[in-house]
Amino acid sequence: MKPYRTDIAWSSADSITVFGRSLPDEILGHLSFGDMAFLELTARTPNANESRMFNAMLVTLVEHGLTPSTMVARLTYLGAPEAMQAAVAAGLSGLGTVFVGSVEGSAKMLSEAMPKPDPTADLDAIAASIVAQFAATKSIIPGIGHPFHKPIDPRTPRLIQIARETGFDGPYVALIQKVAAEAGRARKRDLPCNATGILGALACEFGFDWKICRGLGVMARAVGIVGHILEESRNPIAADLWLRTEEEATNHFRAAKTE
Amino acid sequence: MKPYRTDIAWSSADSITVFGRSLPDEILGHLSFGDMAFLELTARTPNANESRMFNAMLVTLVEHGLTPSTMVARLTYLGAPEAMQAAVAAGLSGLGTVFVGSVEGSAKMLSEAMPKPDPTADLDAIAASIVAQFAATKSIIPGIGHPFHKPIDPRTPRLIQIARETGFDGPYVALIQKVAAEAGRARKRDLPCNATGILGALACEFGFDWKICRGLGVMARAVGIVGHILEESRNPIAADLWLRTEEEATNHFRAAKTE
Amino acid sequence: MKPYRTDIAWSSADSITVFGRSLPDEILGHLSFGDMAFLELTARTPNANESRMFNAMLVTLVEHGLTPSTMVARLTYLGAPEAMQAAVAAGLSGLGTVFVGSVEGSAKMLSEAMPKPDPTADLDAIAASIVAQFAATKSIIPGIGHPFHKPIDPRTPRLIQIARETGFDGPYVALIQKVAAEAGRARKRDLPCNATGILGALACEFGFDWKICRGLGVMARAVGIVGHILEESRNPIAADLWLRTEEEATNHFRAAKTE
Amino acid sequence: MKPYRTDIAWSSADSITVFGRSLPDEILGHLSFGDMAFLELTARTPNANESRMFNAMLVTLVEHGLTPSTMVARLTYLGAPEAMQAAVAAGLSGLGTVFVGSVEGSAKMLSEAMPKPDPTADLDAIAASIVAQFAATKSIIPGIGHPFHKPIDPRTPRLIQIARETGFDGPYVALIQKVAAEAGRARKRDLPCNATGILGALACEFGFDWKICRGLGVMARAVGIVGHILEESRNPIAADLWLRTEEEATNHFRAAKTE
Repeated sequence: MKPYRTDIAWSSADSITVFGRSLPDEILGHLSFGDMAFLELTARTPNANESRMFNAMLVTLVEHGLTPSTMVARLTYLGAPEAMQAAVAAGLSGLGTVFVGSVEGSAKMLSEAMPKPDPTADLDAIAASIVAQFAATKSIIPGIGHPFHKPIDPRTPRLIQIARETGFDGPYVALIQKVAAEAGRARKRDLPCNATGILGALACEFGFDWKICRGLGVMARAVGIVGHILEESRNPIAADLWLRTEEEATNHFRAAKTE
Repeated sequence: MKPYRTDIAWSSADSITVFGRSLPDEILGHLSFGDMAFLELTARTPNANESRMFNAMLVTLVEHGLTPSTMVARLTYLGAPEAMQAAVAAGLSGLGTVFVGSVEGSAKMLSEAMPKPDPTADLDAIAASIVAQFAATKSIIPGIGHPFHKPIDPRTPRLIQIARETGFDGPYVALIQKVAAEAGRARKRDLPCNATGILGALACEFGFDWKICRGLGVMARAVGIVGHILEESRNPIAADLWLRTEEEATNHFRAAKTE
Repeated sequence: MKPYRTDIAWSSADSITVFGRSLPDEILGHLSFGDMAFLELTARTPNANESRMFNAMLVTLVEHGLTPSTMVARLTYLGAPEAMQAAVAAGLSGLGTVFVGSVEGSAKMLSEAMPKPDPTADLDAIAASIVAQFAATKSIIPGIGHPFHKPIDPRTPRLIQIARETGFDGPYVALIQKVAAEAGRARKRDLPCNATGILGALACEFGFDWKICRGLGVMARAVGIVGHILEESRNPIAADLWLRTEEEATNHFRAAKTE
Repeated sequence: MKPYRTDIAWSSADSITVFGRSLPDEILGHLSFGDMAFLELTARTPNANESRMFNAMLVTLVEHGLTPSTMVARLTYLGAPEAMQAAVAAGLSGLGTVFVGSVEGSAKMLSEAMPKPDPTADLDAIAASIVAQFAATKSIIPGIGHPFHKPIDPRTPRLIQIARETGFDGPYVALIQKVAAEAGRARKRDLPCNATGILGALACEFGFDWKICRGLGVMARAVGIVGHILEESRNPIAADLWLRTEEEATNHFRAAKTE
């Protein structure tokens, strides 16, 4: 019988140790919240460039206004205002393949096509092969194009700029842009790299497993959802959202009855 | 019919605006993840002292090793590894009155006893009144004593030190310590202020509504839970935890059958 | 060290036993789903009258059309269609004090006023005392009145009828109706007992702890939510719900920009 | 702009209509909880045989003793006893591909191999083709074999018996058994059909989409989880489960420190 084991943290009567560091002496007041998140994912503290890039990645994912997630949190808070944690939990539950999925999809696509960062790789050939593969299975290429942001997702150039400033503009960041360009040529329309595409590439530059990308989104959205619950507690919309939706969706019954 | 309204964020084809700031130009690369959380709660960016204190508060709440929350996340991940967001959501669902509750309880107690920070208040009298009130209803005073950390919760002196360095050692931080001292005298045993007591006091120093304290805990734990799911994916314990628990809990049936 | 223990169920290589009964031989094909729920709550099987009344109570709570819960489930399914269980979980998360709370509130009020069913009790006096107590604290009396169903919640007379047919029209069912009548007199408007009031009274007739009432609601709604997810998978509304809500809620930004 | 629409239920001041039936007059007291679940999934009421078979299917999935799901619910309830719905929600969140997945997997496998029930189909050939396909991709065949129940899952013969009594022992029930037999021959060991295999086959006999199978498991487990929370509230194990697990999992730290 192997004993249970965690290597993350433990406590004694007078100490708390997290990833080998004294929480009071080496972490509190020394690490920012974002750097603490980095520690959770890598078991080490980031250097200045890593910190700047990683924090920017998380910040990108915090807030998107009214989304299914924040609507869910507000509607849940309406029924159980005494259990705010349940409203956040409900809001996070839908961060699956459809929304946060494209960061994950981009990271998976890039890391499978180039398992290790390779400065000598023929990125044009890899990009062409990726685009051909997706065309063969008629699948959507994750991380390129945007239904709403035209001509380009405004977060993309900014994330690329920060990547350049911090030394993270490596082969994966180059590759996703080549994939976007190649896809645009093949499909004869503008399909620039979007924020999720770049975030997936940056996760690869950090050496993160693509499976952890969803975790980045979940952490970040937890912060944004709390902000929405706070607004909901002051300027509620959930009750109206329910009543107006219910009325509209069952009007056809009323109409049929009076015919 | 009043239209739905959010003042948090909106997008146009070429812009994303969050709390009145351009996300690409004024937030990405400028705000850390912790400062973004501050923006979500206050609609403004923190100054350097606020940032240091607020980040330390969040960091305090990220990681506590194997807790009910992280066990829940691991057991949920065991059944649905394809839906990591659901494992985080499940882990957050139990952050209710029992655990995160004492930050909330401390903030509520302090802010009700002194609705606005008052440097001229007689803190000794307020502390005595608080202790008497809780004694009258035989309730536990939130934020003082600790079942495990003796003689003192090691996070407490460190948080007080950071509060001093950042100018947050105001009347609420003083009051919670006086409550602890008074309670210790009244109950004739050492009941020093614990981390949740100080965190509640610091929330009051920031002017946060006590109801938002649970949100701080939820944000922070979302980060820690992702760390535990990552460890679970590499060195799993959840399957053993289930099988050993099930076996032990139903052994009495087997014993009864063979009697 | 006390070992973990459950008395609900256990398995051996060739048997599965639930509440002392062989699952294959004594439960499957013998107990309906509703009776199985009764077994879970009481550790015994219901007689015919108990079964009819209990099943009617659960059925009352299954379906309410588009509610915050079913909207939450649909919006969650939109983001994570691969994890239907997370959509149901999200939908259940808001069944707190506001909605399902009034069944619980009614049962609590009635069982505190009359801890055991007492056929000789002066129900008029108890009802008057309840109404006076709630008036003194200016609290809403749970289980009476309805914002929408006028003059009476159509489920109420039907549940009372079934209670009469099954012998469950005992002192609690009488008491909630007297509370409603007394409250109507005191507040000079019609405040008939609603479905949640009767359900709370029936829970008392069964001898259920008021705390389990929320569990009845949660079980029942899980069934209804699955029905809504099925409809959402065929005739989706969640995407429109998101996009129309987002557009309306951020229109004021667009208007301000073009001014 | 297409209006939102649900066809499930609506209310007027004096009526509640669910799937075209008056809830008070045609459903309450007439439909059992299990039959109401059938109505939610099919928009019609079951006949006596359908009712018996469908209720047995749901009942099979209600209770499995201490499982990851019920442990999750208990650990969540420990932290937030005031929000029982959140404990049930957390417990349901892990009903993903690993556990409830095999009912879904069995139904998918069978319905893809035989899209419509075909009494003239060569079931032996179809079974051989299924086994060969899974062998080719080295995948586990869902619904056959059992790690624990030997020589046979005791629910299997009972479910088959009820299927025979109710006329549901059609081509899918036959096919899953032929798949099991064929797989046993191919892999040279006993791989009898387990309960999830039969349940998947029965879902096909009912004409349910395989995607709805997870919904059956979720409905059923919601009932069982409430039973476990009730037991937890009376004979708690979650606190011990936490403390013993935490101690054991961090003992290696203590050992290393004292070396």
